[in-house]
Amino acid sequence: MIKVTLIGTGNVSWHLNEIFARTKGVTVDAILSSRGNDLSKSVKEIASKDKSDVYIIAVSDDAITPVSQVLKDVKKLFVHTSGSVAMNALSQEGRRGVFYPLQTFSKEREVDFKALPICIEAEKKEDLKLLEELARTVSSSVYEITSQQRKSLHLAAVFVNNFTNHLYQIGSELCEQNNVPFEILKPLIVETARKISSLTPIDSQTGPARRADNETITKQINQLENKNHKEIYKTITESILKTYGKKL
Amino acid sequence: MIKVTLIGTGNVSWHLNEIFARTKGVTVDAILSSRGNDLSKSVKEIASKDKSDVYIIAVSDDAITPVSQVLKDVKKLFVHTSGSVAMNALSQEGRRGVFYPLQTFSKEREVDFKALPICIEAEKKEDLKLLEELARTVSSSVYEITSQQRKSLHLAAVFVNNFTNHLYQIGSELCEQNNVPFEILKPLIVETARKISSLTPIDSQTGPARRADNETITKQINQLENKNHKEIYKTITESILKTYGKKL
Repeated sequence: MIKVTLIGTGNVSWHLNEIFARTKGVTVDAILSSRGNDLSKSVKEIASKDKSDVYIIAVSDDAITPVSQVLKDVKKLFVHTSGSVAMNALSQEGRRGVFYPLQTFSKEREVDFKALPICIEAEKKEDLKLLEELARTVSSSVYEITSQQRKSLHLAAVFVNNFTNHLYQIGSELCEQNNVPFEILKPLIVETARKISSLTPIDSQTGPARRADNETITKQINQLENKNHKEIYKTITESILKTYGKKL
Repeated sequence: MIKVTLIGTGNVSWHLNEIFARTKGVTVDAILSSRGNDLSKSVKEIASKDKSDVYIIAVSDDAITPVSQVLKDVKKLFVHTSGSVAMNALSQEGRRGVFYPLQTFSKEREVDFKALPICIEAEKKEDLKLLEELARTVSSSVYEITSQQRKSLHLAAVFVNNFTNHLYQIGSELCEQNNVPFEILKPLIVETARKISSLTPIDSQTGPARRADNETITKQINQLENKNHKEIYKTITESILKTYGKKL
């Protein structure tokens, strides 16, 4: 039985608790809030008495180092859950690691953990083994990734998740402006994402920029009213043209 | 029984033929190629003799008007399948329309037609009724859309399909450069797309730009080596900041 203490009460902590509660071989000893003035004291107290195997610091990126500073005398395995923060941002030298579930978490939606990649890292071999065991209780997709690789992965995730979602938002605005239901675009959005399971993105690319179809490109830029939308259209079009070695 | 002739041999024609062949109440009389020097003559000949109810011109945008010019004396219902071309680009005045399946077609992947939106338009009421009947044999999601609305929808599709796919491509490049398997990002990509079935994109937005997290944004821009990737990062970040009324 792997005993876990969660520090933090945000989305990641909430989802980890949800899934660990349903999983054999894992138990959540405590969920500690990292907020407020004197909480650091109580967190430290509880963490000292508590006998968990792993302490998961699931707090905002900025708070990882301060929280780990408060706990620096508690000689246990502390891991954070961030994509962009290096392992050594944690002050627990010798017993530190990362447990990074690569997914977009929101309380409104259940996460399919079995298909959820978990990226792990640890300073000691035995801690890495423990993290792998913990990750495998909830996911069949576990990767050992260095801090440097995780940083790239997180940046890639900004493109495929955050930026993609903003393109959906622009799509929905364009529909709204013309009284077209955004519903019409949803099957296309899902198929675009699913397509990469069988085709690489480089082979899937279609559209006016891929064809270097100057006429359509010019028309569509003129059609856009919002300055930011125009800029995004131009910048991505230029990048697609360059990727496929074309010019207008 | 609705009798259809397909003109053109590209992806859209191929998929329409596939699905019509499996569907009760529709039959494909002929598939005519629109390419080559003397094909226009044979197309005209066959189309004149042929007794289909609907002639679907599934050719590239540029070819729609020329093909319909060739067929202008054939007084039948001609429709094109393009998102960005107005209905009146067809020369068949009085009996013309649009049958626009909004999906990304590739021969490698089967299309789930039942969930596929089909946007229709016609000049005559009875033709619109016929197109609706035809669309409903293969899809449960049929919309009557004007040429103007279709133009916006098509532009929105460029953002959510073509541009999104390019962001996937950038994600895969960033992974490759750092020896991280792109596989790790695939569940995130699919969840990002699925999320909009229950949350609007404006509510789903997360990431450094949404939080106006200047430190992460600056780091990530510096992390990017490719000039085009940098530009895309900056432009989309600026647009997200503006959408949520934030500044760095």
